[in-house]
Amino acid sequence: MVVIMHPDASAESIKEVIEAVQDLGLTAKVMEGESQKIVGVIGDKAKMCCLNVESFKGVEKTVNISKSYKLVSREFHPQPTVIDVDGIKIGDGSLVVMAGPCAVESKEQLLEAAQIAKAGGAQFIRGGAYKPRTSPYSFQGLEELGLKYLAAAREATGLKVVTEVTEVEAVPVVAEYADVLQIGARNMQNFRLLKEVGRIDKPVMLKRGLSATLDEWLNAAEYIMSEGNSKVIFCERGIRTYETYTRNTLDLSAVAAIKHLSHLPIVVDPSHGTGKWRMVKPMSIAAVAAGADGLIIEMHPNPAKALSDGPQSLTPESYKDLMQDVLKLSNFMHESGIKPQEI
Amino acid sequence: MVVIMHPDASAESIKEVIEAVQDLGLTAKVMEGESQKIVGVIGDKAKMCCLNVESFKGVEKTVNISKSYKLVSREFHPQPTVIDVDGIKIGDGSLVVMAGPCAVESKEQLLEAAQIAKAGGAQFIRGGAYKPRTSPYSFQGLEELGLKYLAAAREATGLKVVTEVTEVEAVPVVAEYADVLQIGARNMQNFRLLKEVGRIDKPVMLKRGLSATLDEWLNAAEYIMSEGNSKVIFCERGIRTYETYTRNTLDLSAVAAIKHLSHLPIVVDPSHGTGKWRMVKPMSIAAVAAGADGLIIEMHPNPAKALSDGPQSLTPESYKDLMQDVLKLSNFMHESGIKPQEI
Amino acid sequence: MVVIMHPDASAESIKEVIEAVQDLGLTAKVMEGESQKIVGVIGDKAKMCCLNVESFKGVEKTVNISKSYKLVSREFHPQPTVIDVDGIKIGDGSLVVMAGPCAVESKEQLLEAAQIAKAGGAQFIRGGAYKPRTSPYSFQGLEELGLKYLAAAREATGLKVVTEVTEVEAVPVVAEYADVLQIGARNMQNFRLLKEVGRIDKPVMLKRGLSATLDEWLNAAEYIMSEGNSKVIFCERGIRTYETYTRNTLDLSAVAAIKHLSHLPIVVDPSHGTGKWRMVKPMSIAAVAAGADGLIIEMHPNPAKALSDGPQSLTPESYKDLMQDVLKLSNFMHESGIKPQEI
Amino acid sequence: MVVIMHPDASAESIKEVIEAVQDLGLTAKVMEGESQKIVGVIGDKAKMCCLNVESFKGVEKTVNISKSYKLVSREFHPQPTVIDVDGIKIGDGSLVVMAGPCAVESKEQLLEAAQIAKAGGAQFIRGGAYKPRTSPYSFQGLEELGLKYLAAAREATGLKVVTEVTEVEAVPVVAEYADVLQIGARNMQNFRLLKEVGRIDKPVMLKRGLSATLDEWLNAAEYIMSEGNSKVIFCERGIRTYETYTRNTLDLSAVAAIKHLSHLPIVVDPSHGTGKWRMVKPMSIAAVAAGADGLIIEMHPNPAKALSDGPQSLTPESYKDLMQDVLKLSNFMHESGIKPQEI
Repeated sequence: MVVIMHPDASAESIKEVIEAVQDLGLTAKVMEGESQKIVGVIGDKAKMCCLNVESFKGVEKTVNISKSYKLVSREFHPQPTVIDVDGIKIGDGSLVVMAGPCAVESKEQLLEAAQIAKAGGAQFIRGGAYKPRTSPYSFQGLEELGLKYLAAAREATGLKVVTEVTEVEAVPVVAEYADVLQIGARNMQNFRLLKEVGRIDKPVMLKRGLSATLDEWLNAAEYIMSEGNSKVIFCERGIRTYETYTRNTLDLSAVAAIKHLSHLPIVVDPSHGTGKWRMVKPMSIAAVAAGADGLIIEMHPNPAKALSDGPQSLTPESYKDLMQDVLKLSNFMHESGIKPQEI
Repeated sequence: MVVIMHPDASAESIKEVIEAVQDLGLTAKVMEGESQKIVGVIGDKAKMCCLNVESFKGVEKTVNISKSYKLVSREFHPQPTVIDVDGIKIGDGSLVVMAGPCAVESKEQLLEAAQIAKAGGAQFIRGGAYKPRTSPYSFQGLEELGLKYLAAAREATGLKVVTEVTEVEAVPVVAEYADVLQIGARNMQNFRLLKEVGRIDKPVMLKRGLSATLDEWLNAAEYIMSEGNSKVIFCERGIRTYETYTRNTLDLSAVAAIKHLSHLPIVVDPSHGTGKWRMVKPMSIAAVAAGADGLIIEMHPNPAKALSDGPQSLTPESYKDLMQDVLKLSNFMHESGIKPQEI
Repeated sequence: MVVIMHPDASAESIKEVIEAVQDLGLTAKVMEGESQKIVGVIGDKAKMCCLNVESFKGVEKTVNISKSYKLVSREFHPQPTVIDVDGIKIGDGSLVVMAGPCAVESKEQLLEAAQIAKAGGAQFIRGGAYKPRTSPYSFQGLEELGLKYLAAAREATGLKVVTEVTEVEAVPVVAEYADVLQIGARNMQNFRLLKEVGRIDKPVMLKRGLSATLDEWLNAAEYIMSEGNSKVIFCERGIRTYETYTRNTLDLSAVAAIKHLSHLPIVVDPSHGTGKWRMVKPMSIAAVAAGADGLIIEMHPNPAKALSDGPQSLTPESYKDLMQDVLKLSNFMHESGIKPQEI
Repeated sequence: MVVIMHPDASAESIKEVIEAVQDLGLTAKVMEGESQKIVGVIGDKAKMCCLNVESFKGVEKTVNISKSYKLVSREFHPQPTVIDVDGIKIGDGSLVVMAGPCAVESKEQLLEAAQIAKAGGAQFIRGGAYKPRTSPYSFQGLEELGLKYLAAAREATGLKVVTEVTEVEAVPVVAEYADVLQIGARNMQNFRLLKEVGRIDKPVMLKRGLSATLDEWLNAAEYIMSEGNSKVIFCERGIRTYETYTRNTLDLSAVAAIKHLSHLPIVVDPSHGTGKWRMVKPMSIAAVAAGADGLIIEMHPNPAKALSDGPQSLTPESYKDLMQDVLKLSNFMHESGIKPQEI
């Protein structure tokens, strides 16, 4: 940490900062600038949480130098982590596609969706059994019954299952049925839930919060990893901005940033990221080009009758069209050796 | 709901929309504009959740007309709700002040803080026993022990206790010790937790989410009220914007908006709202002038040693100074009949 | 400036940074932290603009320590600047009110508005003669004719005139008629225009850009002052956020921040800041309580027929009601010695 | 326009709205909903600017149905516009690359940059001669001398020239030297400047404002087209959000949106869009995949010594590497018939 003193700070004020730092067993070094002094603090950063230097007289502000997350960082684990979901690899350079309806509505709907997903080339069926909804009067999901339908779809098609868990109490039952547990955007900082999924032995897909910084997102993953579960997959799903044409602003630069800062894989959700079915294909293609490890796409056998999020759901036809081009592109990226970035 | 058709939409497309609306038992009326047609949908809005008109051919967008929340709305309950916390009234036009440290650190610290809070004129002691923290390595709170200290401070000073509950499992124990349960910004859309505090018989203070719209915030309160608990207090604590000088951007216009849209009281948190102790006093005075029913203020006997959020904590001296001016202003507003707004 | 090296940066990389800094005639000091090194750069900051250290190998990021503005800063000029507009003082602790329609529409409309403004207690008539409008097909203002009407209103009522100048060519004519020239939010970084109004001898009211940081705003004022005109008044008018209920989010904490960082006065525009007439009064009262030096308020003799921005315009009645309470509050703040903040 | 009445609005209030609409020669139709009435307004939208219905008693809000821009819209001109810059086509499905330094610094620097740009496959040299800078003390550009160097680089390499014009007075001189005039983000709503470049016969590249909505951006282009110049190219360069890791958040969904809403071409600026050289390549590839008509990339012969924006400038080596992969991808997209979207 670097403590920036006010240009008018007295020698006394600087002395007080130094002594307080030293009292914690840390080292303080003063650097004299043109207009103001700065104090560098050296040692275990965690100790500084007990000293709020910004409240000291003469202190202008503090700047953190080292990161607060460790296990998720690229420095800690330079090689990319590959997560193996019963034979399906996420993070090894290949493309994984998760497709299906926003919400599980009925057995028929889900089976139909799974067959379409499979035929198009997806490896996962997605579908919400527990739905976090803004209004208490909206459809909240079929809960365990929905999980059973997902398991039935897996049996019928061989697809893996990814589905959201919204509360601590439901972690065991969701973990029983799902291959990958999803933590939704609204729960990205539900720390109790993060710890709970950190204690199970199933991969967790962690969606970015509605207005989460990259740093907060990485720290949320650190909560999961610090409890022992290192199978974490990031999922960029758009952030909240002032723009209202799209439901969210899909931040594809997050793919490049996460690849640089962390060893964990990242998938992209262009459906929630844009909120408009028309934009799902261009953003899917762009995500693959940017280096995403996977896509999660809303597709509904009959989007006009979907119980939730219809405007962003693809029809079976548009899903098929999207998959053809996405797979073409993904194969080409591979064969031609195009690398979005050096890590 | 109003369905706006694309300027090029065919008669066939319009017919499909109308029929789908009618199939749900709702009424559709077409209005012909200069360049495009619109279809008005009349009837129970909840039914429309099953029909995603935006996916229909020829539909440009839909606009919601009626609100999704009811119990929290001013239309439903025209008179302001006054919440009685064991004799302390919130929402009756008087000013309530909640003061204390961000986190409960020790019995001594809390008792000292409570005595200072009381002497300054506060009615509540605040202090976190369960702390949601961005990093898993930060101090996470004393949990039940912290609650016991809060109860001891109440006994010693007569102040009421407001404290955060961060998880469903902790609701019973927090409700046992606290007079008002706080739902933090990160949990504003933890719907499971909202429902849980909706089933207890204690007031709940609901902080606005980091980037929650007013509509989402009102709906979050609706979750609590729809479970039976109508003692909800809103708390504006700043929203996330691009500005980095302040920790958040305190949105005082939310006070006026909530007063207009809802009958529930609203308090303001200028400490988290600005993140800078220097700005707490001007924003407290402004909040009172804007018509807030209360303030929640971070104050620490020794902010430089606070375990959490020190930069925004007041010293006992600056707290005392703030309270003098805030109370002067509040009294004057009352006596002189200044009314921030007609409802 | 502080250069933060990557934890893995080689000794060679650090040497390159140091040498490059020294080549510019600046001093570099290395500080060794727990996990990474930092290099402090000492000397004239302006020279660093020629060296993009962030492009050097092994550099993680740089942090600016000293501010880029000088003349507008509180350090440079510790006493508050008071601007005298022909006898009306702005920044001396009293409250200045500017009121009138968004756009000058006709002589009658403006004279009527000025009489109402005057009767309510305002010192300035406001009204746009040059209107920056999002669409080229919206009403763009009466231009010089509008300025003449403003001058006529001044003559009739004794009110001073504040009006916007939107282009370099119009500076002379606007300066001929106006007492204070306004730079609108969309032109806050029209640097050519800023320089032009920096060369005249009239006060300039500089509105905050739609999404301008405090730092950018202060630097925009620096453009004006660096050309010789030190009579700059800041005007907070709301910033763009994700919230759509209000037109903008009025950032009243900017009042406290500007008072702390600069010696220049600041007024608040609650009309554009909220976009809703209903919120103008509570936000006006709050702005005064926060320590604003003035208010600029949209009021129209007949807001329902206003050519521009009607939804946020007050009627004569609501303006009168607002002024009564605002002046009551302002007087009380003065008499009772309430100080929003120590500078 | 649709006028939404408050649930409690009286019959009298509704009558007043209807009569005011009819007084303007427009038609009003009432639609009765479940909880509230709405009034549809039919006729020339421009007339409504004179009636601020939101100020009427009983009116809750208004919703605009038709768009305020015409000439730039896809409805007005269904076929994509192809802009021919002396033989180089923009918007015909091929990829155009503009490369070069942020600022023109010297003849040598620019010639070297142009040769590298050319060798890598670019069609345009970019470089700022007029630089809008946040601080008045930063390097502001070589002005006409810079333009001469750009012309010299064109002569030497055959590349076309794109460069920014920041003020009305400079339009003639910039138009004399440049092949495409750029309007920068800070000037996107400098309406006087937009009109000025609307009157010349050279293509204009219009950057998106720092926090401009798509609607404002389209309207800014409408300003140019409404003056007669229909050669407008959009340029997405990132928007301002709360995220600070990147300089801006590059909104690639804007590519899909502009393609859907307008017939004009769009290029992407991943350099300003991310502010980090490391992210320029992945975002360039993603932009091409999303369907962008071109890229504008900062590249400097020696980025560590760049006078402006070094951290985001590519070295000649990384530029070459980027171009190889970008061109490979662009060719493949063409050959394989991958279409990001149906319009």
